Amino acid sequence: MGVTTDRRQIVRYLDGVGDERSDSVAVESPLTIVLDDDVLVTTMRTPGHDLDLAAGWLVNESGVCRSDHIASMGAFASRNDDDVDTVRVQLAAGVEPPRPRAFVTNSACGVCSADILAGVRPPDGPLHSPDWTLTAVDVVPLLDQMRSRQRTFDRTGALHAAALVGPAGDLLWVREDVGRHNAVDKAVGRALFDDLLPLTDHVLLVSGRVSYEIVHKALTAGVAAIAAVSGPTTLAVDLSRQHDLVLIGFAREGRLNVYSGAARVPEGESA
Amino acid sequence: MGVTTDRRQIVRYLDGVGDERSDSVAVESPLTIVLDDDVLVTTMRTPGHDLDLAAGWLVNESGVCRSDHIASMGAFASRNDDDVDTVRVQLAAGVEPPRPRAFVTNSACGVCSADILAGVRPPDGPLHSPDWTLTAVDVVPLLDQMRSRQRTFDRTGALHAAALVGPAGDLLWVREDVGRHNAVDKAVGRALFDDLLPLTDHVLLVSGRVSYEIVHKALTAGVAAIAAVSGPTTLAVDLSRQHDLVLIGFAREGRLNVYSGAARVPEGESA
Repeated sequence: MGVTTDRRQIVRYLDGVGDERSDSVAVESPLTIVLDDDVLVTTMRTPGHDLDLAAGWLVNESGVCRSDHIASMGAFASRNDDDVDTVRVQLAAGVEPPRPRAFVTNSACGVCSADILAGVRPPDGPLHSPDWTLTAVDVVPLLDQMRSRQRTFDRTGALHAAALVGPAGDLLWVREDVGRHNAVDKAVGRALFDDLLPLTDHVLLVSGRVSYEIVHKALTAGVAAIAAVSGPTTLAVDLSRQHDLVLIGFAREGRLNVYSGAARVPEGESA
Repeated sequence: MGVTTDRRQIVRYLDGVGDERSDSVAVESPLTIVLDDDVLVTTMRTPGHDLDLAAGWLVNESGVCRSDHIASMGAFASRNDDDVDTVRVQLAAGVEPPRPRAFVTNSACGVCSADILAGVRPPDGPLHSPDWTLTAVDVVPLLDQMRSRQRTFDRTGALHAAALVGPAGDLLWVREDVGRHNAVDKAVGRALFDDLLPLTDHVLLVSGRVSYEIVHKALTAGVAAIAAVSGPTTLAVDLSRQHDLVLIGFAREGRLNVYSGAARVPEGESA
């Protein structure tokens, strides 16, 4: 079994009053699947059952449908720590390999979370004005406001949403999509057309969880903070901290957790 | 605005008693983004705000960060219906284009939902024995059982789960991951190692929503049914119906909706 959770220091706010504590966060880290010497895919995943993951991926992407279609398969830590980051596979003769579109590179090296973090370019401008803050008690009402404008969710119960909050604290627009990433792209794309990028002092609201990819999109757009209804992954927390992005999760019913940038999230009364 | 919801006939069960009705389902359909004459990406999305989506995607994947970096952008219906399936973009001179890894093909044609449905290979074997059924009142307890075994979710509140139920109705194993797709791959991969594929008469349980990709994975593995805590998309419903896969959504607290294969979901007492 891989390590599926890790601990991070957070500040938990209840009705605007903060309390520093350690919290469990779901681990997200890259796994590279290598066929012979070709990289098939690098996917972000929760460690553990990595051979199951690689096998199931092959069932969907190749002709593999029996265990003896896999000639060999092993999980490896390609770095000097113990974390598995690579699964190497050889298929039996005659088994249809994954379609070429899946081949993203011909390097056989796995990547680790440190590579992923180091590979993110810093945002072009500052995320915040020097004295920018996001008062804790204002966050949940903003998410409630977004929820009240999720018109398609109301009818289907099956859509994610993303929204942008301007520097004055006003909800600018809400975008919905079946994909979490698409909802964020739609919210950021709308801002591009208004030439608001970089989104200094803006807050990105998201209806679901926060993974690496969501933080990456937020940093590229230059937002000051992400506030989410659900929780972040370790990689999301670590990437946010590296770039001083405020990251708030589990913001609901008068509570929230600050995973990054708590100095910019003061207690106290709503403005 | 695109059409974000569509109606499907479903059977809604409350405490095991079914009632046929029409229901709103979130639309999922492909959008192809074309730069000059090269396809950049085809993504599944909810129609609407397609230019925002394409612009936000470019912000994350290319050098675009001002509106005048986009020389032209338009949404098109490349088929003889009115549904937008393609966004065509030209970048201003000197703007860094998306990284080459994003180029998946050099065809400039969009694809539509009909192409997507037609492109799925039928499963190798029958999904069900002739008299296989899944009694409605058994479904929610199975999902509750999966939930009780989501160990990492308990600590973090931020993981998806997938599980397989054997032909005798027993929960075989539960797999967790930050990614919905990865959790399904892990559950299916474990079955491959036990040489259980095709998973005739097995049920795939999923903790979240059901999109096209989840149904695709289920069909490739040959499961008889998918039962999910949240709702499916239109494409998930249509693909399930095409292959006679039982599709159950919103299974919680004594309720569930059957979107496909209701003839195999009898009312009545638990066995």
